[in-house]
Amino acid sequence: MADAVLVLNAGSSSIKFAIVETGGARIAHGQIEQIGEAPHFQGFDHDGKRLVDRHWPDGATLSHEDLLTPLLDWAEAHLEGDRLIGVGHRIVHGGTDFVAPVRLDAHTLAALDRLTPLAPLHQPHNLAAVRAITAIRPNLPQIGCFDTGFHHTMPPVATRLPLPARYHAAGVRRYGFHGLSYEFIAGRFAALDPARAAGRVIAAHIGNGASACAMHNGRSVDTSMGFTALDGLMMGTRTGALDPGVVLYMAQHETLAPDAISHILYSEAGLLGVSGASSDMRVLLASDQPDARLAVDLFCHRAAREIAGLTVALGGLDALIFTAGIGEHAALVRRMICDKLGHLGVTLDPSANDRAGPIISAPHAKLAVWVIPTDEEAMIACHTIALLTG
Amino acid sequence: MADAVLVLNAGSSSIKFAIVETGGARIAHGQIEQIGEAPHFQGFDHDGKRLVDRHWPDGATLSHEDLLTPLLDWAEAHLEGDRLIGVGHRIVHGGTDFVAPVRLDAHTLAALDRLTPLAPLHQPHNLAAVRAITAIRPNLPQIGCFDTGFHHTMPPVATRLPLPARYHAAGVRRYGFHGLSYEFIAGRFAALDPARAAGRVIAAHIGNGASACAMHNGRSVDTSMGFTALDGLMMGTRTGALDPGVVLYMAQHETLAPDAISHILYSEAGLLGVSGASSDMRVLLASDQPDARLAVDLFCHRAAREIAGLTVALGGLDALIFTAGIGEHAALVRRMICDKLGHLGVTLDPSANDRAGPIISAPHAKLAVWVIPTDEEAMIACHTIALLTG
Repeated sequence: MADAVLVLNAGSSSIKFAIVETGGARIAHGQIEQIGEAPHFQGFDHDGKRLVDRHWPDGATLSHEDLLTPLLDWAEAHLEGDRLIGVGHRIVHGGTDFVAPVRLDAHTLAALDRLTPLAPLHQPHNLAAVRAITAIRPNLPQIGCFDTGFHHTMPPVATRLPLPARYHAAGVRRYGFHGLSYEFIAGRFAALDPARAAGRVIAAHIGNGASACAMHNGRSVDTSMGFTALDGLMMGTRTGALDPGVVLYMAQHETLAPDAISHILYSEAGLLGVSGASSDMRVLLASDQPDARLAVDLFCHRAAREIAGLTVALGGLDALIFTAGIGEHAALVRRMICDKLGHLGVTLDPSANDRAGPIISAPHAKLAVWVIPTDEEAMIACHTIALLTG
Repeated sequence: MADAVLVLNAGSSSIKFAIVETGGARIAHGQIEQIGEAPHFQGFDHDGKRLVDRHWPDGATLSHEDLLTPLLDWAEAHLEGDRLIGVGHRIVHGGTDFVAPVRLDAHTLAALDRLTPLAPLHQPHNLAAVRAITAIRPNLPQIGCFDTGFHHTMPPVATRLPLPARYHAAGVRRYGFHGLSYEFIAGRFAALDPARAAGRVIAAHIGNGASACAMHNGRSVDTSMGFTALDGLMMGTRTGALDPGVVLYMAQHETLAPDAISHILYSEAGLLGVSGASSDMRVLLASDQPDARLAVDLFCHRAAREIAGLTVALGGLDALIFTAGIGEHAALVRRMICDKLGHLGVTLDPSANDRAGPIISAPHAKLAVWVIPTDEEAMIACHTIALLTG
């Protein structure tokens, strides 16, 4: 018998979860997808064996609360007498006040509600899941872990936007995201290569969302995402960095409404927009269509340009780490990015890169390049367990 | 007796001009300012001696045409029998069709009119001056020189935006600006240091507007300004690169109209917005106010980050060139930027930097750093003379 925590990452149409014992073992994971249409709840054990598979074909009206009830019931039944001691949530935005994981109560929830204008697409869904759990299990402690928190060590040149001070005062500043991933990577790399981890490291979290983070001695000093998760590297369906004059053109010349512009920049752009075919890097890498190749070329050019720009915050580079879906699995993307960074000291070992290393730089290269799988759920579980048992 | 050309750079509230003999000697220059209020026409000779100083205190209704008449009359009188053979215009936008200077006629003007949505703040004023000259001197040949033209050699990864193909087809792509300045610098550097000019060079045009250009063998391969002159380096009153999510926030959360957002991004941001004091780098460098220092720090951080990012297009760097108002005259800004680029091989000679070089890198440094004054008017005169006498 052991205690365990439930890790939740709640979005608009899906809830991802994991069940982690306080000793760190992940005993189950899964997701509820197609919320608001035909919800589909699946759970798997550590070996990927399916434990639960439940459909609500006509579940368009089922809320997060309606769906978290069967999830919690199933989780507690699955624990077979082990005790669920709390829930850890991924919360996209902690603003400037929440730089570390925190117990979620009426007071903290009210403060987090006020950050909704800073992340309108994600924050409400994250907080709705917290309130649903409160309604279902009022006495179950809940912990919020913030995607922005890891970047609170960034200096003013990295957090300030080139705007009048009233914007900074209103919270319109650079926050950075993917912080739980970078915190996990910083911890792993400190164990794998303590000398370089104490130096100048850039981690590139390249998945469907993508960003890069410059870390000095394991602390964030600059990152490519800014006020929102739209900035920086090109992504699956998001633009990444974009001339603000393009947004003005859409508003002034095309007379598009703000929500229509938002939809283009978040959901129709990036790899999907340029290729005209897919937001999935695997599909594009397998394609011989010119627009698919252009999308991959542009993605790698822009990623390399962001990484090179981030070296300014570090004064050089001792290690480069690739992580997340594309970073962990697309050897060709890693190679195309690294080929553009040779002048910074990046030299790949091609065969090591093909087998995903974990060290993929050439032997005896001064600058180490690694592939390290990230695990944001493990990071959330770790914080949740620490706060509830510490 | 010699032939001469008139060079015009016409904006919304001012017209700058120069008179250049076909041999290249600049015999006069000046400007008409405060157009639409109380126009003020000043002309100077080569030594800076004032030749004309005329005020229209109640000239709010005077058009470009009204004011170009006295300018042309004065210019022809000042030539004392020399012949004015043509007018060369700085035109901000040449789109994809006008990559080299061109004779301006009804056909080309119509084509350039169609580019107005791409540069609504500048293109109409540039073209209004052309039409005014046509009305005043129908037989005087006019040549258009384009700020975008020099960048037509950029590859697809530098011109493509991470947007659906329909935008690229509609001309929403990266063009780059300050092209006449970069063309001048490329020509000068090829004369000063032919070996490095044949290699990998970044020129930083840092004035009230600011950008940087990566050149390989004197040809543009990437640049920091994109679709508009709002992207890239932070500027006097413009943001430079800005998370597009900030523009969405202004539209969605602040419910600002597009023109109001445009005014903030173009006229209230940058050095002025961050300092809350001035858009003039000289004023900020002389200030000990914390916000003035932050504005300078942010300006230099962002400039260095852009320059480092541009090295990706070159695969390294052989020379870095500073030009334009701040680039030519602010030794401290050059030093602050260069100090952030040491890992790319940039090493300054502090005393050479203080006296603006022209070579400001340390003796025997592999990477050369130069200060080279730019001269866009000379470039326009050169093109105009070549097309009219060639």
